Amino acid sequence: MGNVFGKLFSISTWGESHGPAIGVNIDGCPPLVPIVREEIQAELDRRRPGQSRITTQRREADIVEILSGVEASLSTGAPIALLVRNEDARPEAYEHLKDLYRPSHADYTYQAKYGIRAWQGGGRASARETIGRVAAGAIARRILKDAHDVEIAACVKRIHDIEASYDLAAITRERVETTIVRCPDLEAAEKMIARIEEVRRQGDSVGGVIELVARNVPVGLGEPVFDRLEADLAKAMRSLPATKGFEIGSGLAGTFLMGSQHNDPFYLDGGKVRTRTNRSGGVQGGITNGEDIVIRVAFKPTATIQKEQETLTKSGEPTLLRAKGRHDPCVLPRAVPMVEAMAALVLVDHWLRLRAQRGPEVKSSPGATPPEKAMPLDAEHRKE
Amino acid sequence: MGNVFGKLFSISTWGESHGPAIGVNIDGCPPLVPIVREEIQAELDRRRPGQSRITTQRREADIVEILSGVEASLSTGAPIALLVRNEDARPEAYEHLKDLYRPSHADYTYQAKYGIRAWQGGGRASARETIGRVAAGAIARRILKDAHDVEIAACVKRIHDIEASYDLAAITRERVETTIVRCPDLEAAEKMIARIEEVRRQGDSVGGVIELVARNVPVGLGEPVFDRLEADLAKAMRSLPATKGFEIGSGLAGTFLMGSQHNDPFYLDGGKVRTRTNRSGGVQGGITNGEDIVIRVAFKPTATIQKEQETLTKSGEPTLLRAKGRHDPCVLPRAVPMVEAMAALVLVDHWLRLRAQRGPEVKSSPGATPPEKAMPLDAEHRKE
Amino acid sequence: MGNVFGKLFSISTWGESHGPAIGVNIDGCPPLVPIVREEIQAELDRRRPGQSRITTQRREADIVEILSGVEASLSTGAPIALLVRNEDARPEAYEHLKDLYRPSHADYTYQAKYGIRAWQGGGRASARETIGRVAAGAIARRILKDAHDVEIAACVKRIHDIEASYDLAAITRERVETTIVRCPDLEAAEKMIARIEEVRRQGDSVGGVIELVARNVPVGLGEPVFDRLEADLAKAMRSLPATKGFEIGSGLAGTFLMGSQHNDPFYLDGGKVRTRTNRSGGVQGGITNGEDIVIRVAFKPTATIQKEQETLTKSGEPTLLRAKGRHDPCVLPRAVPMVEAMAALVLVDHWLRLRAQRGPEVKSSPGATPPEKAMPLDAEHRKE
Amino acid sequence: MGNVFGKLFSISTWGESHGPAIGVNIDGCPPLVPIVREEIQAELDRRRPGQSRITTQRREADIVEILSGVEASLSTGAPIALLVRNEDARPEAYEHLKDLYRPSHADYTYQAKYGIRAWQGGGRASARETIGRVAAGAIARRILKDAHDVEIAACVKRIHDIEASYDLAAITRERVETTIVRCPDLEAAEKMIARIEEVRRQGDSVGGVIELVARNVPVGLGEPVFDRLEADLAKAMRSLPATKGFEIGSGLAGTFLMGSQHNDPFYLDGGKVRTRTNRSGGVQGGITNGEDIVIRVAFKPTATIQKEQETLTKSGEPTLLRAKGRHDPCVLPRAVPMVEAMAALVLVDHWLRLRAQRGPEVKSSPGATPPEKAMPLDAEHRKE
Repeated sequence: MGNVFGKLFSISTWGESHGPAIGVNIDGCPPLVPIVREEIQAELDRRRPGQSRITTQRREADIVEILSGVEASLSTGAPIALLVRNEDARPEAYEHLKDLYRPSHADYTYQAKYGIRAWQGGGRASARETIGRVAAGAIARRILKDAHDVEIAACVKRIHDIEASYDLAAITRERVETTIVRCPDLEAAEKMIARIEEVRRQGDSVGGVIELVARNVPVGLGEPVFDRLEADLAKAMRSLPATKGFEIGSGLAGTFLMGSQHNDPFYLDGGKVRTRTNRSGGVQGGITNGEDIVIRVAFKPTATIQKEQETLTKSGEPTLLRAKGRHDPCVLPRAVPMVEAMAALVLVDHWLRLRAQRGPEVKSSPGATPPEKAMPLDAEHRKE
Repeated sequence: MGNVFGKLFSISTWGESHGPAIGVNIDGCPPLVPIVREEIQAELDRRRPGQSRITTQRREADIVEILSGVEASLSTGAPIALLVRNEDARPEAYEHLKDLYRPSHADYTYQAKYGIRAWQGGGRASARETIGRVAAGAIARRILKDAHDVEIAACVKRIHDIEASYDLAAITRERVETTIVRCPDLEAAEKMIARIEEVRRQGDSVGGVIELVARNVPVGLGEPVFDRLEADLAKAMRSLPATKGFEIGSGLAGTFLMGSQHNDPFYLDGGKVRTRTNRSGGVQGGITNGEDIVIRVAFKPTATIQKEQETLTKSGEPTLLRAKGRHDPCVLPRAVPMVEAMAALVLVDHWLRLRAQRGPEVKSSPGATPPEKAMPLDAEHRKE
Repeated sequence: MGNVFGKLFSISTWGESHGPAIGVNIDGCPPLVPIVREEIQAELDRRRPGQSRITTQRREADIVEILSGVEASLSTGAPIALLVRNEDARPEAYEHLKDLYRPSHADYTYQAKYGIRAWQGGGRASARETIGRVAAGAIARRILKDAHDVEIAACVKRIHDIEASYDLAAITRERVETTIVRCPDLEAAEKMIARIEEVRRQGDSVGGVIELVARNVPVGLGEPVFDRLEADLAKAMRSLPATKGFEIGSGLAGTFLMGSQHNDPFYLDGGKVRTRTNRSGGVQGGITNGEDIVIRVAFKPTATIQKEQETLTKSGEPTLLRAKGRHDPCVLPRAVPMVEAMAALVLVDHWLRLRAQRGPEVKSSPGATPPEKAMPLDAEHRKE
Repeated sequence: MGNVFGKLFSISTWGESHGPAIGVNIDGCPPLVPIVREEIQAELDRRRPGQSRITTQRREADIVEILSGVEASLSTGAPIALLVRNEDARPEAYEHLKDLYRPSHADYTYQAKYGIRAWQGGGRASARETIGRVAAGAIARRILKDAHDVEIAACVKRIHDIEASYDLAAITRERVETTIVRCPDLEAAEKMIARIEEVRRQGDSVGGVIELVARNVPVGLGEPVFDRLEADLAKAMRSLPATKGFEIGSGLAGTFLMGSQHNDPFYLDGGKVRTRTNRSGGVQGGITNGEDIVIRVAFKPTATIQKEQETLTKSGEPTLLRAKGRHDPCVLPRAVPMVEAMAALVLVDHWLRLRAQRGPEVKSSPGATPPEKAMPLDAEHRKE
């Protein structure tokens, strides 16, 4: 259980780090969406190991195969099955870990829950599982782009104690890709890269914070009560391996303000309802208000380190572990496309939900227009 | 859509702040659970308005009626319908808000999404909606208590910039209830109460942070990948009104540590697998490890304030709003039982999921025993 | 579990036959749908006991209260909670049944499954549970009528061995309501009524078959593979108490034909794709083709009879049962609105699913147009 | 949408008849279940084309690959991905069908719903889609067999107007496999085979009825109200291609009886609650009562025939179709394993649901014991 995400644009991932393959099954994709292998591959390339000197050196090309659901490069409305073969699996590298529990990994909890585990490379708990998310996210992103010109961009905001400074409004995917650490503040990026290389040399690891912005998101995404957009974003992000916290808009800092400082005043901007500030992070009452969605996700330092650690064997004997094998000293650079993919998956699912419940035949009334491309929701007060 | 929470212990809430009633329908409750009206009522009393001088003065007794699913004070396995009548609704107090959008409220987004809204008192976006969650949470809590002696306690950790200091391990519900602000640090509590009274006088509001601990949680709750326990907790908490952030274990602070500082070493304690530190917050790889679950939830300052604010009318005219009516200058004291209820709902749902997938016939193997009361999961390495 | 129906237009029913009330919670209703109490009540009146001399004499007015989700007689998109008080419950009439298992009832299976049961009047297994379905079905019917002028009409086709003869294409709700047995063949209706009165005098019961037609159903409802429209209709109908079989289109009789006799040839009728025959019953490959949906549902003779029957007590002692109390000697007349309600619920749910996946921005192509009111799907080949 | 089946033992199928592969993803399989490739393959062999002279001559070995979720031949609790390559696809054989709608196929409805379709071989509407169901069903069957010794056997009861006569209680899979038409009445089987060969020569097709029995099913499977076991069975069976009707127990014939003839009297048999007759078909009030489950499924004559038929092209031109290509003149022999698989999938899902809601800690009470292997539910009245 627990391998399915999304109510209408629903993805189901499968596969272990060291099994024959990893994949995803997408159910609910609208028909007639261009499904371009290269677009999906481009996202996987941003995620794949071995892409730079600061990531794990496992060598996987992560070539995606499209097995179903596509006719003449268009989605047919049927399930889209995507598959990536594991090529550089080295199960023997995990032989020394077979009978012990790596600290702050999932080894113990999987064993205790199921009575069995895929001990080679973390099995399902491996970040390789996110291949399916990133591949499906590429399709979600395409749908949102085509329908509403939605732009989703994430970047590294902080590594360890090195905080970047940038204008979030100006962040583009292109700018983010200019550094291998995916931080748009070039000066900070240099320091971050140095820090990551330093901790790698020490056999240690670091964490940090990723920030994401989504622009041109139509008004009306998200449901009241349990499936608030920020609740589904929180779940999406916290379902990524190694995450520790989630914030939207003003986040934790906002709790130090008073209501009169924190509220976002409304004003009319060229006939469009806008807020002067965006402490709400683009979501009010669980529903998008047309401002940029701004979230931050905290990642812990990688659990796999090469320093000696105290732990237990499966039979309960104390032992010392010094992990061997390939790993990322810092997950954040490769987590950027994962965070973007999860955001795209949440948004496209809620976009389909809005289409279902609202549809186009809602009567026009002040403050209410159909959620259609031709007449975007947020145009509702536009003056003729 | 979006009014249902939980896969197996599934609750469905309904009702508006100023409608005739508010309620919840619980589907999937195991049979033969004692359903005690007074236990449910006790939780609602902790949540109800007018309970102290620092909450809203709306007077609601919030008396719960049990309409179905119970025979001889035991659950029958059928849906349990709970209903609370609204008695002190004063829709006329909202007349001046009918045609404008309160800043940082859900007025605009509901109107834009649906083309219509219940304008009296916030409708579904009102915190009165949480009555159903708290009532259902009381039953969830009872099940967890009876099965595993699970204890769930939350308290106010910070109001505005006043931070409490306490030993989380020693927090009990009783201690938390000794102050009206629900903070166990008596000195800080006094300051918090003074601050809340001060901002109320100013017509303003404040936010803060609630911390929750869950003890005796069996090993094995939570699913890999998307339905990780912390992901479902994140969603649960972020679905509460006015929340801005969520952390587990070391949280944001943990991202300033290195892996060698952050990992939780395993050791054997009386035959039981334990970790020396608990930066994981009781969850590893999405699954409980038997340590205390520790989470924190950030709440923004209440959006309703009595200071003058810039906003728009429904027809797009700029206007100034000075809200009248009753409201909480700080939601945190009343949010404590809401946070506890959501935690209980997540835990009981995953406990039923574990029972489904694991069941009792799993073969005994080192590191794996059935998730049963008589032989708890976390006893797995207990020596004879 | 098992008390929720529908993926997008999702209803959740609760309540026991002899508890304080029965209700339903509707989640996912589109906004701005007229919610007219009288329309809902009219359907409940067709379902209620005591409506004629051939139904049970339990006297329930079954007055529906609307508790949420409605503003100015329009749905708001929030959950619609509907409640009906039980007024003529006589639990004492069931005292003699408390400790025994009525044959072909749910007494034994509920007791065995849950270890407890609401023994008064059948609890959840009572046909009173269908109040929630019929009430929600009235709203579903209204949505379908407004959007596509969909007409749903069911009638009694056979009682015991008395089979009616009528032109299904001409059946209207009004015609069906002209006889208390809800059979449009007046001659057969008279015989059916006499048969029912005869078996009642004998303390016995009879069953039969209900037939339903749905007209003007848009093309494209239903999903491939598991959620085929006929599969969801089959589940919907077979979830009604006392049903034994389900057929669509040619049904069982169709299995005696050869393919060349059974296939429905396509032709063009005023620019519209039609089939010359309708052995498919309006559904091909799980998806509606624009022809009338035609289904039949078989109901067994009522299990409650007043003849002496062999059975067991809860402790396993053989005993003889002669049931007292009020019951329907034949459920079919009152089951007509239930069958219609379930059909409406399935259709509206799939209509929302179609809106979600197809939306309006699908590019026009031969044989494909948006599922919109303004340009109905089935107009696709209409020539100008 | 619509490609997922099961709430806890949840399968998600993908793939087209003429795409590169067909597969299924199983989420929710309990851990430590033996996953034996040969067992799965054996079921696929019963389903595969070209297995005898009365099936389609498409030559597919349908070799299954297990891609995930298995460690040391045991399930790990993670998703089990199964894949079968299409080898004998001949898309060119469908070239003449590309632009027209085959009567009583899904061509028109898919095109109208999605605006696009996989025209080679029926795409998702092809019976090749059932490969995933049959493969997953083999695992479900194994779980049920190991836990409760459940036996599921189906056979052909009628082809066209040739009805078999057999003792259902004595039907075994082995006996069914003795004839290529999978009918245990050898005399009838011979006539059926002759009839199928005759209609093939005529370029025509025939349908019929399959009957299934499930023995040793534990008491308590199925949920009240919407997810009654017979409702989920009805949906499961009616989701198979070419089905027209569904019956349980006495079925349609039962509606000709009176209540006093139809009810199943209870009696005690060696301490076990039994019914003297089984008109209920093993299910009462939606829940299994421990008697054999007996259902029947009606299949229409294959839609693909080689006789000339009237139809339309995609652009609406009338045309005559004489289908070429390979097809089954009668689907029933190959549908037997499909019907068994769907029954196993429904039963295992409800068995997991029972484990979730009941668990083992239910207090013992007359008529209620835990749903465990060691102490089966139906032993509840067993005398010491």
